Amino acid sequence: MTPVAKAGRSGRRSGESGTSDAILEAARAQFATRGYQGATIRAIAADAGVDPALVHHFYGTKDALFAAAMRMPVVPSEAIAAALASAPQASLGTHLVKSALTLWESAGVREAFLGLLRSAVASEEAMALLREFVADSILPTIARAPGLAEFSRAEADYRVSLVASQILGLALTRLVIGLPAIAGASVDELAATVGPTVDRYLTGDAAVPGD
Amino acid sequence: MTPVAKAGRSGRRSGESGTSDAILEAARAQFATRGYQGATIRAIAADAGVDPALVHHFYGTKDALFAAAMRMPVVPSEAIAAALASAPQASLGTHLVKSALTLWESAGVREAFLGLLRSAVASEEAMALLREFVADSILPTIARAPGLAEFSRAEADYRVSLVASQILGLALTRLVIGLPAIAGASVDELAATVGPTVDRYLTGDAAVPGD
Repeated sequence: MTPVAKAGRSGRRSGESGTSDAILEAARAQFATRGYQGATIRAIAADAGVDPALVHHFYGTKDALFAAAMRMPVVPSEAIAAALASAPQASLGTHLVKSALTLWESAGVREAFLGLLRSAVASEEAMALLREFVADSILPTIARAPGLAEFSRAEADYRVSLVASQILGLALTRLVIGLPAIAGASVDELAATVGPTVDRYLTGDAAVPGD
Repeated sequence: MTPVAKAGRSGRRSGESGTSDAILEAARAQFATRGYQGATIRAIAADAGVDPALVHHFYGTKDALFAAAMRMPVVPSEAIAAALASAPQASLGTHLVKSALTLWESAGVREAFLGLLRSAVASEEAMALLREFVADSILPTIARAPGLAEFSRAEADYRVSLVASQILGLALTRLVIGLPAIAGASVDELAATVGPTVDRYLTGDAAVPGD
């Protein structure tokens, strides 16, 4: 998993740090005005007055640049791809939930979630940006899970969106609100309880639109 | 279900309207400073300069007063109790999800959700208030569902908290963020998909702490 937002940290020359800050500022402005899909690394580079190659050098993909601009401590799509790559054959859902819960124990994750929510509830534009990021970066990554390819695109989309609803609900109750029974449960307990839900949504017998 | 916040509406004498507004303001201040559990109708009445009986007359229970103060279009615990009372024997989960989704189609619900989130992410005190309200008003109401009484209090609490995680995740993705596959699905489709999850969390074979 690529650590994000490292480029602007101390220990670098201030010229590099100033450049990466300018890129992040340009990225925030582009994402806010053009949305996740509309923003391009080329336009962000132009706004920051640097070569697009430098943006790629500092931040890699648009996913990773978005994560850095939003001060996320990890790149969600990379974390999900890593979890999928390391999944055992049995209960992919349990493994995915466990990976998410383990990641949430990292420093800065609650603050990042709160920051995202704060930004999203402040304006409909920011909410649309969050919607696009989930729909265009997170959901397609979950859709690469084994077994999803056999479904129609609409059905796969419905299934991974339901997975997102349960995982986001867990993030909301465990990390953000801190509901005692959820916040106090162990990673293994919650993964064992919620994993089968995710398995069913992904590939199980779930009523889907059009069935 | 008791409609809330009616007392301050037009068509009443301005004296009554002024009194109910004063009660709501005192309630907001009490809930914010003392939390959901700490706030009392007696103290709110004293702050508003009215008799506690008048607060009960206007708003009924503390639950209903909280809902009115937070500008919720319905009282969540009353809506859940009504859904439980009208539930068929088979798939209580499907019925509960359907009731929630149907309620969310009402005017003002999205704005109420957004308002709650906005308030909660603005300060840790407001987040604690939301946590107490969910833990002390919503969860105990869900725990009255048939079959829950046979579990220990800790297990029942874990089970209903998981139900809350899925329902809140659905609210977040359907109402607040508006993820296309979830926002575009029908009430019946989502109830058929998510209902079995709720059934399993409530009374099914779910790994619970201490097992």
